[in-house]
Formats: sequence, C-alpha cells, structure tokens
Amino acid sequence: MHCFRVGIIQMPVTDDKETNLGKAQAMIIQAHRQGAEMVVLPEVFNSPYQTALFPKYAEPYPGPTTEMLARLAREKRVLLVGGSIIEQDISGKLYNSSFVFDETGNLLARHRKIHLFDIDLPGKVAVRESDTLHAGDNITVVRHNKLCFGLMICYDCRFNELSRAMALEGAELLVIPAAFTAATGQDHWDMLMRSRAVDNQCYVVAASPARNPESSYQVWGHSMAVDPWGRIVAEAGETENIVYADLDFKLLQQIRQELPLLQHRRPDVYQLSYRKPNPEYDKP
Amino acid sequence: MHCFRVGIIQMPVTDDKETNLGKAQAMIIQAHRQGAEMVVLPEVFNSPYQTALFPKYAEPYPGPTTEMLARLAREKRVLLVGGSIIEQDISGKLYNSSFVFDETGNLLARHRKIHLFDIDLPGKVAVRESDTLHAGDNITVVRHNKLCFGLMICYDCRFNELSRAMALEGAELLVIPAAFTAATGQDHWDMLMRSRAVDNQCYVVAASPARNPESSYQVWGHSMAVDPWGRIVAEAGETENIVYADLDFKLLQQIRQELPLLQHRRPDVYQLSYRKPNPEYDKP
Repeated sequence: MHCFRVGIIQMPVTDDKETNLGKAQAMIIQAHRQGAEMVVLPEVFNSPYQTALFPKYAEPYPGPTTEMLARLAREKRVLLVGGSIIEQDISGKLYNSSFVFDETGNLLARHRKIHLFDIDLPGKVAVRESDTLHAGDNITVVRHNKLCFGLMICYDCRFNELSRAMALEGAELLVIPAAFTAATGQDHWDMLMRSRAVDNQCYVVAASPARNPESSYQVWGHSMAVDPWGRIVAEAGETENIVYADLDFKLLQQIRQELPLLQHRRPDVYQLSYRKPNPEYDKP
Repeated sequence: MHCFRVGIIQMPVTDDKETNLGKAQAMIIQAHRQGAEMVVLPEVFNSPYQTALFPKYAEPYPGPTTEMLARLAREKRVLLVGGSIIEQDISGKLYNSSFVFDETGNLLARHRKIHLFDIDLPGKVAVRESDTLHAGDNITVVRHNKLCFGLMICYDCRFNELSRAMALEGAELLVIPAAFTAATGQDHWDMLMRSRAVDNQCYVVAASPARNPESSYQVWGHSMAVDPWGRIVAEAGETENIVYADLDFKLLQQIRQELPLLQHRRPDVYQLSYRKPNPEYDKP
C-alpha cells in the first residue's frame, strides 16, 4: 500500500431521504470516475441532523440506505465508508452508525458513535444526542488489503485516547465522518484534525455535509484530508464539493522514522488500555 | 483562584552563563513589576541548547542557578517556574530539569524531562538529547494555594497521554518551558499548544528562548498563552520579549460546563493509567 486516492464527499443533506440517497449515489459515482479507491460520506447523510427527527429517519441493518451503499461499493469496486446513518437495532434502540463496505459489497465494519454529542453553548448551539441515541462501546479499526484505518464519528475525534488507541493498533489513517457545528468548527475543526494527524503520525480524512442555510443546525463544512505532518492536503469550503487526496504511505513511514513519536512514548510512565478493536464484535 | 497574571519570559540565551543568569534576573524583576504572580522561564535558559555542551554547563541542586531562582522568588514573592537547566545528580548523571519555587523561595517541585528529544530531519535539524541526558520518570502536577498545574518540558508536550494525565489529576494549567526548533515550531507549535488546551480544557503557557541568529540551534520563539477554548491570548514574536496573560479560571469553569469533554470521556472503553504525580517523589 503505497499510494491511495480518497474521495471525500461534502454533500448537501435535505429533509427528504430519497433526495439525500440520490445525491449520495451521484457523488459516489462521480468520485469513482475521478479515480477514488476509497469514498467517504459525512455523518448522518440521509437525514437532517436534528435529534428529534432521528427516530423518523432511522433504519435497521440491512435497510434501504445500507443496501444502496453495498450495491454501489460492489458496482464501482470502491471501499466505501458510508458516513453515518441513524441505525435502529432489533430492540428499537437508535445509534449513530457508520457502515463500511469493501469492493465486493461485503460489510467490513460497523462503528457506532462512542461519544454522544451533548453540548450547550448559550446563544450558539445546543444539542443532546443522548435524548434519542444510545452510544456504541467498541473501537473500530479496519484492516483491508494493506490498509489499516481507524473509524470515528464526529465528536469521537475530540477524545485523544481514541485516536491514540487506533494508532497503537496499527492505523495509518483516521477516517472521520462528521457534522461539526459552525460555531465549534470555526474555532477547532482544523486544529483537531491536524493534531490527531500529528500526534499519531497518521493521515486524517474528515467528511462534513455541505452547509444548508435553511437548516436549524449549521454545519462547518470544510471536509479535509491532513497528512501525517499535519499539512492540510485537500479542503472543501462550505458548499457541495468532492475533494480528493492521494495518500502516500511512504511519506508516512519517512515521518515516523525521522520523528519517531510512537516509539518515544513512555509506557513505563503512562499506559493506555482499551477494548481491543475487532470488527467482528460490532457487526450486525 | 479566579484570575492570575503570568509573565512568560522569552529571553536570549548566550554561551556565557553569567550573562544568561543576569538576563533572567532582570527579566524576572521586570515581569514582577508588571504584576506577574507567576513567572515562567524557557527551557535550558542558562546554557546554549547544544547537547555536547550540556556537561560543561550542568549544575547540581542546589547550585548557582537554582539559588538565584530561589532568592528571586522569595525577594519578589512570585511563583517561579525556572524554565529548565541541565542538572547533574550526585552520581554524575545529567537531566533536563525544571525547578519550581514558591513565593517564599521554597522548592515546590522538580520536573525532569520525561521524553528526550532525538530527532533527525535531514537538511533541517538533528538532535540527540539521549547522547548526554537521562530521562525523568515522574509526572509533575503542582498544587499551590488554589492553583493546580502540570509541568512539562518541550518534547514532553507532544505526547498527549501526559497532558491528559495532568488534567485528570486536576490541572487547570499546563506550563511548558520549551525550545522548539524553528523547523518543527513553524509547522506544529501553535497547533500543539492549542490542542493541549482544547482537549483538556486547560490554560497552556509555553516559554521559548528568543531566537539567536548566531546559534547553531535556531529556536522558534513565539512564547504564548492559550486559553481553554484554544484562543491564543498572548504571543511573542521571535525576539526578546515578556508576554503577559491574565488567566481567568471562571472562564475555564464555564467552558468545562458548556462542553463537558472531561466528563464525556469513556473510561469503560479506554483507560489511561500512569504513575501518580507526587512532587515529593521527585524533589532532590
């Protein structure tokens, strides 16, 4: 695995699920045409990001959205990180879940968002995902061909233990479907993505929805890819776009050799322990 | 502890120790006159940052440098974080050590740099601290009056486990005497300081030497203070300067309440364990 093209889809999300699925399909096909071997959708791409509406838009696995994603992955032979959708399990519980399909349409992994976004910035934004969602309990690291990547959803990325655990498990890429608010995105988005990359000497790929001026929840946009030195190598604005990044794992190896951060950790002074990632645990 | 003025000393460092001590003294007195209750010096402030020269400039504790620091802390009644010096222990081993004195001149803590800086960026910079230094083994969190702060030296700050451990121990401020190279500082300095602040919702205060165009080791400078939302609230350029920041711990409490990151961690999914900080362990 030396070089690898990722397409990052910054798609508009409406309150019409069919419209959203059609847009996702069109943009996945477009990214494939531009040579993307991996395609990443944003968080909650088939539904408005409004916690009160999550029950209405939720789906089981398999369901219409995941079936469409599996079909597109197979037809276009792409590795498809299906952003996230609101997943309803057999007991009726809801999760913010990312489904990953390989080039044959086979389900590689499901990540359920571990950290629910409960925030109250007076005058700016207030969200309580925990009003309608349950949290996942598993760390998701996916091994596929020669690629090893960690998968987080939005707020998960704020907790540096999680990306560190992924790097210790061998991840060379962190994939982050997200929908940061404009308020926190403006202040923290670039810095968080760059710091996860630099601390762990990984590529970071983060996908956001496009901003919808009519939405009650204003997203930051700025889908991006960051290299392991912390350089932003691809970045969208706020509107609909697909940005591409060619990930160079020789560069990653060179950086890890010149500044061997992961080797310089001091496990005799601090230790990070965690639930071992195993995609089989968390498949439906 | 609601508001608290810190003076961050970006001082020139020459190859003459007496000159360096005189400059440090003058700048500490100046910071005190400007109302600083805490004064922070940069890494290796009494000696050139050249590993081969460390044995020549090393001192035991107590020694001329720490005696001067203790006296100034007492005379000016300031909390003094004495950057760092090369410390020689009774067996002859050398450490990169920071000595902290309270307003009575009493030694509050000694931090020995845990992560030695061994880096080789071809064409830019190569350093091997481990050629002449030994590493410390203890995490340093200082409680003094109502203040609780973590103390790291330069490269220590790249390892996010360390600042996280400090926050979990109650630190609301991370103090970082440093001497980043211009090469890595340009690319990473701001981002690292901001990310340590935002991830842990702490203030960060980092002191660098001023850049000396004649030195073989070009430092980045840009001593700074960052608030717990990641805003740079004080910043030097590259030349000699003292910058001041008024740390507002009500703001810190407000940020921790509105976006409760430390409460949203998932210790059932990942756990950070570490040597419990105890300043008594690591005093001479």
